[in-house]
Amino acid sequence: MIGRLNHVAIATADLEKSAAVYRDLLGAKVSAPHALPEHGVTVVFVELPNTKIELLQPLGDKSPIAAYLEKSPSGGMHHVCYEVDDIAAARDKLAAAGARVLGDIKIGAHGKPVVFLHPKDFVGTLVELEQA
Amino acid sequence: MIGRLNHVAIATADLEKSAAVYRDLLGAKVSAPHALPEHGVTVVFVELPNTKIELLQPLGDKSPIAAYLEKSPSGGMHHVCYEVDDIAAARDKLAAAGARVLGDIKIGAHGKPVVFLHPKDFVGTLVELEQA
Repeated sequence: MIGRLNHVAIATADLEKSAAVYRDLLGAKVSAPHALPEHGVTVVFVELPNTKIELLQPLGDKSPIAAYLEKSPSGGMHHVCYEVDDIAAARDKLAAAGARVLGDIKIGAHGKPVVFLHPKDFVGTLVELEQA
Repeated sequence: MIGRLNHVAIATADLEKSAAVYRDLLGAKVSAPHALPEHGVTVVFVELPNTKIELLQPLGDKSPIAAYLEKSPSGGMHHVCYEVDDIAAARDKLAAAGARVLGDIKIGAHGKPVVFLHPKDFVGTLVELEQA
């Protein structure tokens, strides 16, 4: 069912400093910051040859990563995103197997349908599925 | 400097159950367990089209992931591994810039030279560099 690893999301309270770590220390290709107010984050894309790292900073007062940063103020890995061909079929299969799907399918930060899966059912890892 | 994302490592106290999550729920290609006593883990490789997820379970009483699982008994994302061309040059560049390099370059689980970097200097994320 799952295909490519679309991205690894890393939460940070200081996007500029974190982007500099990837750009200046690790020598990666790093985008300008993109504000995504409808998703409650500002994102910097770290482009690797085979996938992306997304550095996420909270935006607004209902950011989905605010709680994470309260627990882990220095940031850290927030979720992984796997691609699927058919997100409704994936959601239905997982729900039928008893896995906890978090909310409805929505349009994600890349303009494609996404859904999140509960960490407790996926090896302690928040998983995003994105219809590729 | 960094190239491909070689793998994302996910720690688990129950490798069989975690492998089943990826194989049966998420429909991924999952290897048999490999015991790596010299690295203190047993690993299952989840093969995605563009990278790997490595599910790690502690092996022996000096496992490098034991402390992580004490804090997070249900498991979770443990580190990311980026490929570099020249690991000694990468280590020297990072150390000269003041980043904390954890210990010496060693031979890692794939038989290649690796070194770990301190999460506090890398956006709260434990980073492994592997000479590809």
